Amino acid sequence: MRVLAKDIAQACRERPNERVEVYGWVHRIRELGGITFVILRDRSGILQLVLSQEGDVAISSLTLESVLQVEGLPTLNEKAPGGVELQVEKLAYIAQAEPDLPYQVNADTGKIGLEAILDHRGLSLRNPKIRAVFKVQSTIIEAFSQYLREQDFTEIKTSKLVGGGTEGGAELFEVVYFDKKMYLAQSPQIYKQIMVSSGFERVFEVAPAYRAEKHDTPRHLNEYVSLDVEMAFIESEKDLIDLEKGLLSHVFTELKRKNAPELALWQAQLPDAEAVYRAPIIPYEEALKLVNREAISGDAKQRARIFDINPEAERLLCDWALREKGTDLVFVNEFPRRYRPFYTYPLDATRTMSFDALFRGLEITTGGRRQHDYKALLEVLPKFGLAEEAIAGYRVFRYGCPPHGGFAIGCERLTQKILGLSNVKEASLFPRDRRRITP
Amino acid sequence: MRVLAKDIAQACRERPNERVEVYGWVHRIRELGGITFVILRDRSGILQLVLSQEGDVAISSLTLESVLQVEGLPTLNEKAPGGVELQVEKLAYIAQAEPDLPYQVNADTGKIGLEAILDHRGLSLRNPKIRAVFKVQSTIIEAFSQYLREQDFTEIKTSKLVGGGTEGGAELFEVVYFDKKMYLAQSPQIYKQIMVSSGFERVFEVAPAYRAEKHDTPRHLNEYVSLDVEMAFIESEKDLIDLEKGLLSHVFTELKRKNAPELALWQAQLPDAEAVYRAPIIPYEEALKLVNREAISGDAKQRARIFDINPEAERLLCDWALREKGTDLVFVNEFPRRYRPFYTYPLDATRTMSFDALFRGLEITTGGRRQHDYKALLEVLPKFGLAEEAIAGYRVFRYGCPPHGGFAIGCERLTQKILGLSNVKEASLFPRDRRRITP
Repeated sequence: MRVLAKDIAQACRERPNERVEVYGWVHRIRELGGITFVILRDRSGILQLVLSQEGDVAISSLTLESVLQVEGLPTLNEKAPGGVELQVEKLAYIAQAEPDLPYQVNADTGKIGLEAILDHRGLSLRNPKIRAVFKVQSTIIEAFSQYLREQDFTEIKTSKLVGGGTEGGAELFEVVYFDKKMYLAQSPQIYKQIMVSSGFERVFEVAPAYRAEKHDTPRHLNEYVSLDVEMAFIESEKDLIDLEKGLLSHVFTELKRKNAPELALWQAQLPDAEAVYRAPIIPYEEALKLVNREAISGDAKQRARIFDINPEAERLLCDWALREKGTDLVFVNEFPRRYRPFYTYPLDATRTMSFDALFRGLEITTGGRRQHDYKALLEVLPKFGLAEEAIAGYRVFRYGCPPHGGFAIGCERLTQKILGLSNVKEASLFPRDRRRITP
Repeated sequence: MRVLAKDIAQACRERPNERVEVYGWVHRIRELGGITFVILRDRSGILQLVLSQEGDVAISSLTLESVLQVEGLPTLNEKAPGGVELQVEKLAYIAQAEPDLPYQVNADTGKIGLEAILDHRGLSLRNPKIRAVFKVQSTIIEAFSQYLREQDFTEIKTSKLVGGGTEGGAELFEVVYFDKKMYLAQSPQIYKQIMVSSGFERVFEVAPAYRAEKHDTPRHLNEYVSLDVEMAFIESEKDLIDLEKGLLSHVFTELKRKNAPELALWQAQLPDAEAVYRAPIIPYEEALKLVNREAISGDAKQRARIFDINPEAERLLCDWALREKGTDLVFVNEFPRRYRPFYTYPLDATRTMSFDALFRGLEITTGGRRQHDYKALLEVLPKFGLAEEAIAGYRVFRYGCPPHGGFAIGCERLTQKILGLSNVKEASLFPRDRRRITP
C-alpha cells in the first residue's frame, strides 16, 4: 500500500517499525561516506531515501528523474527534509529515465531563464516550486467557482467559435470552419449577457479567451483563462466591485488554507480580508491626477505627464494605495466613454459605469454595468463605427433585459501577482505567444 | 428588499401581512372576471401576481417577457403555483418588452422544433424547462470537479491551440495563428499525459474540444465540453473504470440533492449508487457476441450481423444491461488494437487496456491505460502511419513517466442522457454544427 511522502513522518510516529511503500521520481542523488542519499519526489512532496546496499537496481546506475517503487523502514531524523527518512530495503524501477536529461529539474528555478523553462515544460513542471504555481491556480479556479455558486450563480460553457468580435476589434484569430470563416472568442461577453437576460440572472464561466495581439510583454498572453462573471439587477459598477471584493477575499482565504506550502515556496504573502475590503475606489479623472502627483514626487525620470491609466499609472496607483491605505488592491471607476466598449452603461455624457481592478501594480480585471436597452445601444453604435448587424446578438434585449453588469479576471495575471512571478507566461501551463506554439 | 419567487410562500407563512418586493419576467398573462393574473418568472421559479387595479403600468399594455418590479402582499392560495400569490400594490417596468415576440417562451417545449429552439436561444432558454438543462449541467461540472479534488486531483487548463492532432486524424479545425497554421485541440490528451508525468500524478480539465466532423447526427457536436481525467500509477483500465463509477455515482447523488426541481421538469430518474457500482464490464469480443445474440432475438429487421460496437450495438448492450442487470451503465473494455489510438497500452498482441462507458444507449466516455514507455510508443508508430515527429510531445516520457491512464466524459452527452433529451445539441448552450454558427 503506497504512502505519500507528506504522510511518512506521521506514519512513522503512529506505527514505528512498520514498513512503507513509496513511489516517486529521483529528484537528487548524493553520496556521503559510502551511503547514497536519494531525494524522492511525489505529488505531495519529497522524502529522503537512505540506500546502503544494492537491491534489484544497481545504485550506481540510478538516474535522475527515474520513477521508483521503494519499500523500507521510515525513521525520524531531524536533519532530513520533513524530519523523516526511509531506510530502503527494496528498490525497483517503475520507469528508468535516460541519463541525458536536457533540463536540470532540481536546479534553483530563479537561475533558469524563462525560455528554457517554457521550452522544457514537461520537465520544468517537475520542479516543486514551478508545479506550485499551478497548484495555486487550481485553487484560484476552485475558490472562484465555489464563491459564486454560493451566491446562486450558474456555471455556463459558451462557444469559443464566433462570427466576429464583440469588442469590434481586429485582434481576432481566424478559424477555417468548414466552408466558413469564424473567429476565436475574445471573451464570452455577448453570451454571458444573453444568459443573464435568459433568466439565469447570475452566471460565471471559466474558459479560454483569445487575443491576436502582436506585442510580447510580461503582461500579455495570446490565449488565457478568463474568469468571467455577469449578474442582473445591479444599480452600478459599485455592486460589481463589492462582489469582486468578496470573491478575491474568498480566493485569498482558500489559498492560505489549502496552499500554505506552495505559497511558502514563493515567499508569497496574501492580503487579509480586511485589506481587500479597504481597497479604495478612485474615479478615473481623480486617479489620473493622483498618478501625476505621484510621478512628480517620485523618480525624476517619470516626470513626463501621464495621460491614461497605462501600465506605469497602474504601478503608481498601487504603490500609493499600499503606502497610504495599506492595501494591495485599487479600483478605478468611471472611465471615459472613449476608453470603453460600446456596450458600457453611461454615468453621464462623458463617463461610464465601468471599472478596472489593479492588484500589485497590474490590471487584473475589467468590468462594468452594461447597456441593457437595445435602442440606447443602437444610438451609440455610430460613435464606435459599428453597424447594427455587428450587434445582432443583442437584439434579444428588445424582449425584456434587466439592468446588469459583470467583469472578467485574468486567471494567469491573478496567479502571477499572488506569487510575485515576473512574467505572466510563468502562470500559463502551455503559453502561446507570437513565436511559441509548442509544446 | 427583493425576495425570490421560491421564497415567497415561506416569507408569507413566517411574516404574514408583510409586503414583499419581487423582480422578474412576465411569463404568462390571463384575464379572469375582470382580474388579471400574471405569472412572473425569476431565476428561482414562478409566482402568480394578482392585478386588480391600474398602477404605474397600464395592465392592458403589459407585454410578455417584460421585466417588472412588483410590490405587494403575498397570500397563501392552494390553487396558485407554489401555493402562494401576490396581491400587487405597486407595479413598474424594469424593462418593457416589445410586443412582437418572435418565439413563444411559455409554450410546451415538446411542441417546438429543435431548430426554432436553437435559432432563438436567447428566448428559448427563458423557458424554465429548457433552462433546467443547464442548471443540471452546471451541477455535473461542479460534482465532477469536486469529486476529483477530493481524490487529490489538480485542475489544469491547457492550450487549445496545437500544432497537430494527437489522434493523428484529419478532423481538425485550422486556425490562422499570426503567420503560422495551428489547429483547435481535439482533446487535451498529450497535455494531460505530460502533466501526470510532471508529478501532478492526478489531473483533470474541463474545457472545450473540437472535432471537424462533417456528420450531423443527434449524438455529435463540432465543439463540446470535455470532462478529462488522467492519473498515474494504475495497473489497468479497471482502475479507471472504478474511478469513473465513483465519479458518476457522486454526480448522480449531487444532482438528486441539488436539482430535484430541474430533474422533475424532465421526469428524469437517476440510477442509485448501487446500480452504478453494479455496472457490468464486458470485454469487446464478448460484447460483440452478446450484441449479435440480442439483435437476433430482437426485431427481425436488426438481424444483420453487427461487426463493431456501433451506435446500434451501444443501444443493444444498454437494453441488455437494464433488463438483465438492472443498471443504466455498461463498460466495454479490451478493445482491439486497430480501434484505438497509438498511445493505448496493449493487453496482448491484439487487445488493449481500453474501455468505453455506455449510458442509456450512448457512449459517454472513452478511456484507457496509455503507453508510458517512449520506445514502445516508437515501435507502434509505423502501424498507425505516424512519424516520430508527430509524437514530439511524448519525448519527455524518456525521462521517467509512470504507468498512467485516463478518460474523457462528454459533458453534453451525459447531460442529454440524464434528462432524456433526444438530441445532444439540446445540451449545448450555443451548439456549433456545419451550418450553425450563430447565435
